[in-house]
Amino acid sequence: MTTIGILGGGQLGRMLAMAAARLGIDAHIYCPDENSPAARVSAAVTVARYDDQEALTRFADSVDAITTEFENVPADTARFLTTHRPVHPSADALEIAQDRVLEKTFLNDTGIGTAPWRNVDTLDDLAASLDEIGPHGILKTRRLGYDGKGQARLDGPDDIAEAFETMNGAPSILEGLAMFEREISVIAARGTDGTVHCYDPGENRHSDGILRETTVPADIDGATYEEALAIAGRIVEALDYVGVIGVEMFAMPDGTLLVNEIAPRVHNTGHWTIEGCAINQFEQHVRAVCGLPLGDPARHSDAVMQNLIGDDIDALPALLAEAGAAVHLYGKGDARPGRKMGHVTRLG
Amino acid sequence: MTTIGILGGGQLGRMLAMAAARLGIDAHIYCPDENSPAARVSAAVTVARYDDQEALTRFADSVDAITTEFENVPADTARFLTTHRPVHPSADALEIAQDRVLEKTFLNDTGIGTAPWRNVDTLDDLAASLDEIGPHGILKTRRLGYDGKGQARLDGPDDIAEAFETMNGAPSILEGLAMFEREISVIAARGTDGTVHCYDPGENRHSDGILRETTVPADIDGATYEEALAIAGRIVEALDYVGVIGVEMFAMPDGTLLVNEIAPRVHNTGHWTIEGCAINQFEQHVRAVCGLPLGDPARHSDAVMQNLIGDDIDALPALLAEAGAAVHLYGKGDARPGRKMGHVTRLG
Repeated sequence: MTTIGILGGGQLGRMLAMAAARLGIDAHIYCPDENSPAARVSAAVTVARYDDQEALTRFADSVDAITTEFENVPADTARFLTTHRPVHPSADALEIAQDRVLEKTFLNDTGIGTAPWRNVDTLDDLAASLDEIGPHGILKTRRLGYDGKGQARLDGPDDIAEAFETMNGAPSILEGLAMFEREISVIAARGTDGTVHCYDPGENRHSDGILRETTVPADIDGATYEEALAIAGRIVEALDYVGVIGVEMFAMPDGTLLVNEIAPRVHNTGHWTIEGCAINQFEQHVRAVCGLPLGDPARHSDAVMQNLIGDDIDALPALLAEAGAAVHLYGKGDARPGRKMGHVTRLG
Repeated sequence: MTTIGILGGGQLGRMLAMAAARLGIDAHIYCPDENSPAARVSAAVTVARYDDQEALTRFADSVDAITTEFENVPADTARFLTTHRPVHPSADALEIAQDRVLEKTFLNDTGIGTAPWRNVDTLDDLAASLDEIGPHGILKTRRLGYDGKGQARLDGPDDIAEAFETMNGAPSILEGLAMFEREISVIAARGTDGTVHCYDPGENRHSDGILRETTVPADIDGATYEEALAIAGRIVEALDYVGVIGVEMFAMPDGTLLVNEIAPRVHNTGHWTIEGCAINQFEQHVRAVCGLPLGDPARHSDAVMQNLIGDDIDALPALLAEAGAAVHLYGKGDARPGRKMGHVTRLG
């Protein structure tokens, strides 16, 4: 019997644990919170802080391989665990994905295009940067932002002071606004044997910085499809990555693809694979992390995945009664604004 | 937050618990065994005997609705729990399905054909019964047989003594041999609102009394398809049933359908629905038991489900490496002969 250790107790950990169970693999959740969504479907749980080396050691000794459900797990935690058990994704990959400047530097160094960007430490940096890549841009903290948090939009020099204030002194990055036609994402997986498998790209619709909907197939031509998969492949190779990664891309009017961000984990834009494929992204990740062969990423159906955010959940009775709506709920208590409570997938 | 209580800790309970989790519903497993497959994916577990009224009461008080993963849970246990919480399937339905004589009497009273059968209490009963419905037949214990256990084949009067001996004094039933063209099964579901939904019939192949393979669609004509669903519908109506039920049928050369047996639970011949449908049989059962609307049973793909029994599991490395094979393992320790260790589904 194999046991997979998962850092983090949210919905991604929950769906990873369920995918592990399907393969007969026990899940052991490590997270600081009591009664987390993932712990409630897992064989074991450790409730402890990410810097508790004693708890981490006991956890590592009780599992066969370790992964994480969120990219902001401290890289030092991953590095410490690596001295006990295989950890995927690696601390290095986490470190790159956790810092937008390291991430974009990595991408550009790998020959992958991004929107123009500048490192911003001071108000003067910001003014100079906006002058170079503006007039529109988004100022983001280098670290720890997600779902639109820690971001400020600028539409000209007048917005500089307020935007800089929003960062609250945190090291930041100014990203030029990419006037994209559509946003797509590739869910890629790489096994310990170096095999790379990608799911069909999905097309994403965000609002307020939060993913609302992913549609597969994305409305892109064959050349763009091939290029999107090639880019994801170059990223996982360059990172010597093991596991599933989400790669968000902007499809530009001139046909080029710019990478927006990489998420070294299973990804919200890949939830459609649960209904759309025989082997979903969660099982694919478990397979990779546990050193098993990757599964077939073939898609058997078109699908639309819609997030249930905050009081979207009020529509639950109607969703449950809707023929063909596959409803997923994450077992979270209150439906706070912006909180991902579940999702629904419709095959088409 | 809803909690579903599940009596039994085997693979069916495990897959039910995972389906509940998908809907944000916690599972609480009640079973006499420590560390059962189902408990390892569930939020709570009670390890106690099925006649421990104190434990049953505490269990009932901690859940919102109760079901069972196996038909041989004592009907008295279900009846006792019914005084605390809704229990589906009902104690009455369990009682009928637990006794082959009650089951066939119920079916025939409902106007549903079966192979000829006779109640057998004595050696003389058996001799007279074989004379009437033989020369071929299968002697089975009335209660507690499954997967070919507690059965003896007879091919003429010479086999009477040994077959009777095999029953070891247990009340028995002689069933005439149905010379069927194929065995099919319908996985039907009925909600608390009386809605009935059936999955497409699967075609089953057994050996040594154990299911080996289910293929959908079954190779039957349109009239037989309609008749199979109508029979399943009549059964769930007559039982005032809530939940998923498996109805095994023999398709005879003259086009008629005989019901072989009913299983008041999710069913091995419905495992293909995990990959073949957006809403699988396990979620359908959870929805029914929890009083939620039934989901859409539409099948989006053809599928073949193959059981992994005993040392079939030795093929695991090859199965994991096989493109398109969706492997399910139940987290059981040793691969004893005849033990269901997992299954694999291939979409086609």
